[in-house]
Amino acid sequence: MRVTASCVCGSDLWPYGSMSPVDGPARMGHEFIGIVEETGSDVRTLAKGDLVVAPFAFSDGTCDFCREGLHTSCVHGTFWDMEPDEGGQAEAVRVPLADGTLVKLPVAADSALMPSLLTLSDVFGTGYHAAVAGGVTERTRVTVIGDGAVGLLAVLSAKMLGAEQIVLMGRHRTRTDLGREFGATDVVAARGEEGIERVRELTGGHGTHVVIEAVGTMPAYEQAVGVVRPGGVISRVGVPQYEEAPIGFASLFRHNIRLAGGPAPARAYAEELMPAILDGAIEPGKVFDATTDLDGVPAGYQDMADRKTLKVLIKP
Amino acid sequence: MRVTASCVCGSDLWPYGSMSPVDGPARMGHEFIGIVEETGSDVRTLAKGDLVVAPFAFSDGTCDFCREGLHTSCVHGTFWDMEPDEGGQAEAVRVPLADGTLVKLPVAADSALMPSLLTLSDVFGTGYHAAVAGGVTERTRVTVIGDGAVGLLAVLSAKMLGAEQIVLMGRHRTRTDLGREFGATDVVAARGEEGIERVRELTGGHGTHVVIEAVGTMPAYEQAVGVVRPGGVISRVGVPQYEEAPIGFASLFRHNIRLAGGPAPARAYAEELMPAILDGAIEPGKVFDATTDLDGVPAGYQDMADRKTLKVLIKP
Repeated sequence: MRVTASCVCGSDLWPYGSMSPVDGPARMGHEFIGIVEETGSDVRTLAKGDLVVAPFAFSDGTCDFCREGLHTSCVHGTFWDMEPDEGGQAEAVRVPLADGTLVKLPVAADSALMPSLLTLSDVFGTGYHAAVAGGVTERTRVTVIGDGAVGLLAVLSAKMLGAEQIVLMGRHRTRTDLGREFGATDVVAARGEEGIERVRELTGGHGTHVVIEAVGTMPAYEQAVGVVRPGGVISRVGVPQYEEAPIGFASLFRHNIRLAGGPAPARAYAEELMPAILDGAIEPGKVFDATTDLDGVPAGYQDMADRKTLKVLIKP
Repeated sequence: MRVTASCVCGSDLWPYGSMSPVDGPARMGHEFIGIVEETGSDVRTLAKGDLVVAPFAFSDGTCDFCREGLHTSCVHGTFWDMEPDEGGQAEAVRVPLADGTLVKLPVAADSALMPSLLTLSDVFGTGYHAAVAGGVTERTRVTVIGDGAVGLLAVLSAKMLGAEQIVLMGRHRTRTDLGREFGATDVVAARGEEGIERVRELTGGHGTHVVIEAVGTMPAYEQAVGVVRPGGVISRVGVPQYEEAPIGFASLFRHNIRLAGGPAPARAYAEELMPAILDGAIEPGKVFDATTDLDGVPAGYQDMADRKTLKVLIKP
């Protein structure tokens, strides 16, 4: 695939912050759109010239887990991040299991819809997965923790699923303003105990049925435990930066709090989410607030790490 | 209420093992059947002479949580174990919120169905809750960890909900034999890594969709993580004897493993489960393998702690 659009993910910032220069170069990036340049002999559904989007995990599309819609647990696939020789922040990528992985786009590569279609590779699918795994319906109150791209698209997803109240917890005004545009009914800038108190005030004292945790840190998890309603669910899509966490009597068990979520099977949602983008009903691509070429990628990482930009689109 | 039948719970063994004699006497017991002797002025649906069963938590039956079927999170109720002045291993109990809490039994106090009806107070409702919270259906494979009364009744519940495979993990032959009678298709006596390996062999390598954890210890939780299928759910009903546990990328997140369960709203299931007991279709009371009077209660605790008996029925 020749990459025509790609981007930097919030999860790319974890290795960006922790990798040492002495580890040598690493191919990065797991969200990309591009044009098929050449196909392997087993590829049946794609041909040179097709414009396609790649989810952040590749998958065969035929195993038990793919058929159940859990493509991120495909028995033959894995995450791009686990493949040291491939990455989407590049001129070109070799895509394994192309038939199962890639999704054709019915537009031209220079379409104005490209930023929104690019979100199908990860952040929109991930936000949507958070809402689906949390069981959001029109009878649900939702808290979204985190005003990054995934959190904001979780707000949009909860709105699409009809949530009656969506409380966005985030401190960056430009981001939470976009969250309101996507459907947040309330914004809480406070964190920790004060933030928990504020969400409880907004929700009749009991917290919300669904809490989407779109950060991945321990304070975000603790905040989720603090604002979830008895019998409710914490749906996690931020990659956990911890292994052990409180789940005993006091935190989850006492009030039948459930835990859900994980890596989103973005491939499972692509066809479902695409029509609303194509007909202009939603514009998830608004999460991109900067664009760069490949040479500008290092600065793009730095700007995202410094919270100067929300999400950087790359045009190789 | 004059208590006509009560029993010792597996969870009574936790304080039994940890309480110090210097703490003084404690009223124990949260599973009981009895006859209404006197009613408070607000009681509307019960009268002197009614035979009733009490769930292990009392609840008003009218708050938001009770109406949602989550009686254990009732805003006015709590667990009997939290009420120092009341307990069911006694001649009599004062029952708060009687209308919301107590369930009338359409039999006489000397009915042969009494052991089975007594399980509605806790162990049957808890086993059933584990299966319901885990989402057991006729397309589900289930592992049940623990061959105590709750584990065995979780087997019966999974069978009632149509599970296609039920693997019971337990080491006590007389108990696992009852498990087979209740519907277990496979029994695994091995524990730890060996037990996990054995369950995976029995389930096509991937583990089961639902894992019911009916013990509450860390090794049981780790076993649950080991045998749950990607996208599956660990349903906990054993009171956790830990607060922190692994829930990060490696344990739950990577494969979208969900966590469910908590204290069973036994009150919510009483009417649903009673008919099959009354018409003899099921006999959950088989978990009682010993009977004593009040004087024999201390020996009953000791026998259960020593695993000499599975569950002791008390006739005050």
